[in-house]
Amino acid sequence: MRSDSDRERALFELGIKLGALYHQYTGATINMETLESLERAIERGVSAQPYVLSSKVLIDRNKVQDKLNKFGYCELEGRMLDVRIEVQYGSAKVAGIIRYDEELEYPLMSIE
Amino acid sequence: MRSDSDRERALFELGIKLGALYHQYTGATINMETLESLERAIERGVSAQPYVLSSKVLIDRNKVQDKLNKFGYCELEGRMLDVRIEVQYGSAKVAGIIRYDEELEYPLMSIE
Amino acid sequence: MRSDSDRERALFELGIKLGALYHQYTGATINMETLESLERAIERGVSAQPYVLSSKVLIDRNKVQDKLNKFGYCELEGRMLDVRIEVQYGSAKVAGIIRYDEELEYPLMSIE
Amino acid sequence: MRSDSDRERALFELGIKLGALYHQYTGATINMETLESLERAIERGVSAQPYVLSSKVLIDRNKVQDKLNKFGYCELEGRMLDVRIEVQYGSAKVAGIIRYDEELEYPLMSIE
Repeated sequence: MRSDSDRERALFELGIKLGALYHQYTGATINMETLESLERAIERGVSAQPYVLSSKVLIDRNKVQDKLNKFGYCELEGRMLDVRIEVQYGSAKVAGIIRYDEELEYPLMSIE
Repeated sequence: MRSDSDRERALFELGIKLGALYHQYTGATINMETLESLERAIERGVSAQPYVLSSKVLIDRNKVQDKLNKFGYCELEGRMLDVRIEVQYGSAKVAGIIRYDEELEYPLMSIE
Repeated sequence: MRSDSDRERALFELGIKLGALYHQYTGATINMETLESLERAIERGVSAQPYVLSSKVLIDRNKVQDKLNKFGYCELEGRMLDVRIEVQYGSAKVAGIIRYDEELEYPLMSIE
Repeated sequence: MRSDSDRERALFELGIKLGALYHQYTGATINMETLESLERAIERGVSAQPYVLSSKVLIDRNKVQDKLNKFGYCELEGRMLDVRIEVQYGSAKVAGIIRYDEELEYPLMSIE
């Protein structure tokens, strides 16, 4: 049985962090004044997890503005997210992103 | 058919906010350094919702400290929450809390 | 200090259940084959909570069909939900719904 | 710039699925009668996602029984989960699990 390389383990851990972030925080209620506070809280929440070197979260202001409902707020959606997380496992450093893919119309998670 | 009073509608809205907060944010990863950022983000997220006058969120430092795992973090649990939300609907102002009930061993939501 | 009536407590509990359901299950991945399983699981999950008499969950097939991405699935959104929950507290029975309001373009929670 | 192997991409995708499952469904309310319905809904929800070959979810009955509160229910916790997901990307098939690690006292996600 083969043993996983550091890079393989790092990519597995990276996937965990991205999947977790997405399903933990989407659905949170935001408006233009409160989204920055959520960006920072997500970054910090991710950084508390094992193997994370850095995390950067940006919520698309234009998409939020477009989605504000009659009550002046909206929910965080995957398509509003621009995320970059760096993970280190052993000697391997990897980075992954969540970014809306216009062609696929899909918030794609990918290895950078 | 009777029409609901402002107070009845306010209490209904208050329940929505507490139930939503609980199930949106529990599970988020925290440590002693990051929990304050999450407290502020939850407060701001709640305040973005209709009829909310104020929201105050405190995460129990002792319970977090006790629950830190081998990797130095834990998940936000309902029992760590001390929350107070004020809602106004029409002429009615109501407040509700989430607070751990030691006797019931349960994070109780109640009308203040 | 006034004491809350059974009806007031029932409406507060009803709001909790609706807010909780919404923020627990939206974001779950579904397709046309799997949504029925989620409908039943949500109903059962709600029915496990205190004071709940009944719960009925319907996910809008047309809205799911429209939202299927290039990979053949989508996420459960609040606007896809048609929910009815009955709660009893003491002598008071109340029912509440989540239903997409076309005019408001909003998944409105209301007392029935 | 090196290109990722199929196995690396598969492990990244596997991580995403495990992280997503965990943070989507933990917190859901369950009792002994309703947990099976949630198990099936989680399995089906995961199976709707790209690259998933199979998913198996078991919720630990003993841990649920121990955690039932005074109202007869509890919330799904990561430590109650026994999960196995198989993912295929290109020519690479990988499997990952979530299983409670007694020594670490931690719901560990690992590559099988």
